[in-house]
Amino acid sequence: MSLEQLKSQIANDFGTPAAVIDLDRVEHNIGRVQQLCDHAGVANRPHIKTHKSPVLARMQLAAGARGITCQKLGEAEVMADGGIDDILISYNLLGEAKIGRLGALLKRVTVTATADNPTVVADLARAGKIAGRPLGVLIECDTGRKRAGVERPQEAIELARLIKQHPDLQFAGFLFYPTEQSWPQTQRFYSEALAGVREAGLEPRVVSTGGTPNLVNIGQLADATEHRAGTYIFNDRMMLACGAANADDCALSVYTTVVSRAAAERGILDAGSKTLTADTGGLDAGFGLILEYPQARICAFAEEHGFLDLSRSNDRPKVGEVVRVVPNHVCVVVNMFDRLIAVRGERIVEVLPVAARGKLV
Amino acid sequence: MSLEQLKSQIANDFGTPAAVIDLDRVEHNIGRVQQLCDHAGVANRPHIKTHKSPVLARMQLAAGARGITCQKLGEAEVMADGGIDDILISYNLLGEAKIGRLGALLKRVTVTATADNPTVVADLARAGKIAGRPLGVLIECDTGRKRAGVERPQEAIELARLIKQHPDLQFAGFLFYPTEQSWPQTQRFYSEALAGVREAGLEPRVVSTGGTPNLVNIGQLADATEHRAGTYIFNDRMMLACGAANADDCALSVYTTVVSRAAAERGILDAGSKTLTADTGGLDAGFGLILEYPQARICAFAEEHGFLDLSRSNDRPKVGEVVRVVPNHVCVVVNMFDRLIAVRGERIVEVLPVAARGKLV
Repeated sequence: MSLEQLKSQIANDFGTPAAVIDLDRVEHNIGRVQQLCDHAGVANRPHIKTHKSPVLARMQLAAGARGITCQKLGEAEVMADGGIDDILISYNLLGEAKIGRLGALLKRVTVTATADNPTVVADLARAGKIAGRPLGVLIECDTGRKRAGVERPQEAIELARLIKQHPDLQFAGFLFYPTEQSWPQTQRFYSEALAGVREAGLEPRVVSTGGTPNLVNIGQLADATEHRAGTYIFNDRMMLACGAANADDCALSVYTTVVSRAAAERGILDAGSKTLTADTGGLDAGFGLILEYPQARICAFAEEHGFLDLSRSNDRPKVGEVVRVVPNHVCVVVNMFDRLIAVRGERIVEVLPVAARGKLV
Repeated sequence: MSLEQLKSQIANDFGTPAAVIDLDRVEHNIGRVQQLCDHAGVANRPHIKTHKSPVLARMQLAAGARGITCQKLGEAEVMADGGIDDILISYNLLGEAKIGRLGALLKRVTVTATADNPTVVADLARAGKIAGRPLGVLIECDTGRKRAGVERPQEAIELARLIKQHPDLQFAGFLFYPTEQSWPQTQRFYSEALAGVREAGLEPRVVSTGGTPNLVNIGQLADATEHRAGTYIFNDRMMLACGAANADDCALSVYTTVVSRAAAERGILDAGSKTLTADTGGLDAGFGLILEYPQARICAFAEEHGFLDLSRSNDRPKVGEVVRVVPNHVCVVVNMFDRLIAVRGERIVEVLPVAARGKLV
């Protein structure tokens, strides 16, 4: 089957917009990153927020990943339902609803949680109590991203001591998400925190780093035991822009139809902000790369309209034509779809539900 | 029950982030716009892309709306399943998958479709044939927004003639979505197109205008028969900014928990770009209005983190506190949730599924 035939088949059988993944590329990406981790002696714990599919998570595990990372409790529950039993939730969890569910989850699979403050530590202890076994907790440490994470080693040490006091918790180690520039700072933070927890009689069994762009730094943090990368399974324009991927590594594209060509220099795609999302990925280059028309720019969105600026494109699509768009930020785009159409070459081989789609809670 | 008790109940029973709608305000908004339409002598055909709920659509119909508007075929199917039988799809539909479904839909409810080009007209005719009854088609006309729609009255006339030739189609009229400034231009476009179709022996039965901000212009287009407004049912920060709504008209807020306060001047909400979306609504004021801390700014997002800049806020929330966020653009935010929690005052009265959520196709 040719690419044009594949496009017709997808448009005719599923309708557009459709998210299509190339399984050969997916497998290549999974294998490449597993090899990077193996070579660095750091366990691979891929972040499933990118694909939200237990099927793809199991492929990552089969290739050698130690376990998986989730950002939301609802994602972790879907993954546990999908047979996965070693799950890190790299996010502060608190509140009665979530703690009850976390306790129930801990009864059935191995879960490691994360905390950066005493309120969360206290709530996590209740989850351990519900489960009837101690919950492992990583202390999230900030080294420049200014997201979650304690800012000073002393705070990390205090939280470790607090965790030690709870019979329903177990100090598991440290979680970092360094910026690409902050590895030296991360090393200093870690060394100081390590010395402090050792004084308290504790030893980290997990030192976790994260990020697909940070794979170039893997193993640079001495003692790092695990790495959490997510985007690498599909890649996107952000990964192209930062050099973390090549064009052939981009495994997901959104098939979308040109539905209007009201003037020579413009057109409309049937993928708007409810499909490709308004997330620019920090790029100033439109909202996605059109593989067939790289000079065309998706310059604006309505909810269901992608506005095409064709003024710089000599070739221009006609109404009814299906084009493939590599998203700027693939993780938020997958989350808009109920299913991924999996192909090998130009052949459809499977339809994968995005089982943890929209698990906000 | 107090607001604080309501927040606790929502956090404890449902978890955050949660989308909460105030039904008293929803009813007020529905009534107010129905009255505006009645007063202008223009039928109300609300756009359900904002709420995606057949329950809320039926409330709009019960208040006097003539029918509803959908942007996607999948939305229309969900609404038909919900018992609604007069549906305008204000979007170019084409391709085998969609045309087959459109034909099946036309067999069971009254559907009006839209076209701005001959390719779509030809495909729509196939839907009419499948249904065994003519499909009414509005010609979408652009008068300044540069989205979909023919740019010149002559093109509209030619499309009307084309529609007339198809036994499976019926020329239904014109669809406009003027910018707030382009009503005089729209009037000129319409008058010229009207004269042309009359020469062809056709008469529009529908002349449709759209947009919540355009409710101030309702009835200004002579001969307008219907108006499509969507956002007014909930309103948002965009509607506040353009004067289309007051604070008391904002009927939806996202309840979100402060999960981290790593430094004095910053914090993290459990609502990021996968909840509130990166859609700024064109506002330069952060990604949502925090009702409890209006001086705080949601300055950036990760997928599950809302970055709070508290530097200008004297009052600052603590970890575990639940706050309410009025979104910049409510339509894209509703689409991220599986359900809306409906309250009256501080009492939960219902949980509404967002039944047409994520109907991309």
